[in-house]
Amino acid sequence: MKPTTPKVTKGVSAPSTINTSAIRKLRQQRTQLSARQLIEGIQNGDRILLSKAITLIESTRPEHQTIAQEVINKCLPIAQTKSTIRLGITGSPGVGKSTFIENFGQHLINKDKKVAVLAVDPSSQISRGSILGDKTRMLKLAADPEAFIRPSPAGESLGGVARKTRETITLCEAAGFDWIIIETVGVGQSEIAVHSMVDFFLLLLLPGSGDELQGIKKGIVEMADLVAINKADGDNEKKAKQSKRAYRNALHMLPPKPSQWIPQVVTCSGLSGMGIDNIEQLVQDYQQHMQQNQYWQQHRQEQASYWLHETIKQQLLDTFYQNEVIKNALTQQKGEVLQSKVSPFQAAENMIELFKRQLK
Amino acid sequence: MKPTTPKVTKGVSAPSTINTSAIRKLRQQRTQLSARQLIEGIQNGDRILLSKAITLIESTRPEHQTIAQEVINKCLPIAQTKSTIRLGITGSPGVGKSTFIENFGQHLINKDKKVAVLAVDPSSQISRGSILGDKTRMLKLAADPEAFIRPSPAGESLGGVARKTRETITLCEAAGFDWIIIETVGVGQSEIAVHSMVDFFLLLLLPGSGDELQGIKKGIVEMADLVAINKADGDNEKKAKQSKRAYRNALHMLPPKPSQWIPQVVTCSGLSGMGIDNIEQLVQDYQQHMQQNQYWQQHRQEQASYWLHETIKQQLLDTFYQNEVIKNALTQQKGEVLQSKVSPFQAAENMIELFKRQLK
Repeated sequence: MKPTTPKVTKGVSAPSTINTSAIRKLRQQRTQLSARQLIEGIQNGDRILLSKAITLIESTRPEHQTIAQEVINKCLPIAQTKSTIRLGITGSPGVGKSTFIENFGQHLINKDKKVAVLAVDPSSQISRGSILGDKTRMLKLAADPEAFIRPSPAGESLGGVARKTRETITLCEAAGFDWIIIETVGVGQSEIAVHSMVDFFLLLLLPGSGDELQGIKKGIVEMADLVAINKADGDNEKKAKQSKRAYRNALHMLPPKPSQWIPQVVTCSGLSGMGIDNIEQLVQDYQQHMQQNQYWQQHRQEQASYWLHETIKQQLLDTFYQNEVIKNALTQQKGEVLQSKVSPFQAAENMIELFKRQLK
Repeated sequence: MKPTTPKVTKGVSAPSTINTSAIRKLRQQRTQLSARQLIEGIQNGDRILLSKAITLIESTRPEHQTIAQEVINKCLPIAQTKSTIRLGITGSPGVGKSTFIENFGQHLINKDKKVAVLAVDPSSQISRGSILGDKTRMLKLAADPEAFIRPSPAGESLGGVARKTRETITLCEAAGFDWIIIETVGVGQSEIAVHSMVDFFLLLLLPGSGDELQGIKKGIVEMADLVAINKADGDNEKKAKQSKRAYRNALHMLPPKPSQWIPQVVTCSGLSGMGIDNIEQLVQDYQQHMQQNQYWQQHRQEQASYWLHETIKQQLLDTFYQNEVIKNALTQQKGEVLQSKVSPFQAAENMIELFKRQLK
């Protein structure tokens, strides 16, 4: 990102003597946008200020986090007034997620919708950059002024990555995007995180026999509100139809969803656009149905509650395990447990007592 | 259990004036066995004192827990010197676990082994008594002086039940039992708890097609070191052989175990005793093999470490959620989260800050 050129802020006169520390501070004040400026920009749909605010969310610096949290808390009630659809999309690598999102996004834009595409990819910490939500893989969508594409935040833990993405959703909603698409790769725990922040969860599969469902974790299939067999074009057409039947049978064996929604299986082609319209219609039907029976709002509240308790748990554990006194005592207690000098339960109790004293 | 008749303890003279509180205290001193007495009894293989010590483990009264923890800590190094086999057995209701254990236990006793049978059944909190490890269901084994049967402890949480059972294992090992069998029912999270306290995990299944593996959670099948198709007698014999092939194929698709052990599939009949000898031999082979390659001890240490961290996590959460100030503040913060006044992440951080101040 191009750095903003420093401007002399009104009301701040240049120091009369040279004081490098004061100058540095002054420069920071000049280049650092205030929470108020960012919120105003987001509300006005300014992409650059939205991007800058997301960068602050992703930053680990405390002064950035202070501004980021102020922006989020101000955006929350604004986002609350908007009618958005949060759509999660998952599928194994190679299933054609990028092409699908490229076409699905353009389809929505043609219907006068504004589309944001985010990604959750905890592996990006290893590859030092996101492999998902990459603008180079969604060229047309990236060039469209009605679309906003943001790659996965980097992070040391899935929890951290998920939190940043969840907070970014709030900003995108306050910025007026109608559809928020969150992409994830179907190979780990990240689907659970994404499933816990979206209204509708779409699983993309390739044409093939129903046996392949076993390759995908049963838990992921259970989360899906819709299974779409992608690449159902050309020679694949017949195979895709067979798959549809097989997957439909497999889905019948799953327990009913809390929403009482019965997941459907459809075919589509992200490349030709076949079936894209149908998928959009199904998501719209879902929204209408769930808003009528109150599940839509109830589900969003359950998700907020989930993140509250999940974050509490993670921060309790972090507070405990990152305490230096605890670290040393734990090494010693663990040694005694392994030597059968103390039971693991007694050792745990000793550690908890020490922890309570530590916080005093 | 019949209460012990109070005896006049040596060196304690009767009070000269009537003082009910003092008398009650005196009676408690008389009936309450000391940790030293219990440990001596357990080491001498005294079943009555072993039972009494387990009752203290299961008690929620702090004075009982103090003695129980002393007994456990003294038994730990004794148990450490013994060569025991901890065998977990699971299977759906109706698979014939009790009959299998009745026969398997007697088979071991005939080979001059001492056998303890414990159970983990968190549902016993609902049924107000254990449905598992019931002596009335293992009549012959219950009557055998070389066997010790103890039903599942009651408890409000699986964690509590599991801890009590894990502590009871230590006492049984110190008491000289060679095989500790822990029974559980294959319908929930309790298998994970039992799997984390045994050396070898046996899954009992009924004859039928391989499709039924889908009925049993994949995670449970993955934990099994041995799958035994029970009730492989009479008309079932042919069907059981077919099942054996099907299950063997299914097991081949599972990822390799950390022990590098390849789980086998065998047939048996708890009723006729067919295959019981073979199963014992397989467990013995496993022990010999794993003791040679050091996995046996390493695995037990990993389990101790697991319980240490698991108990820390549980107690941290309990300390947090049972704090009265936290309870009230959480209700209020959760309300604000649900009204989109604060993000769940910010609310969690507020709660953690409050928690740290609470402990001060």
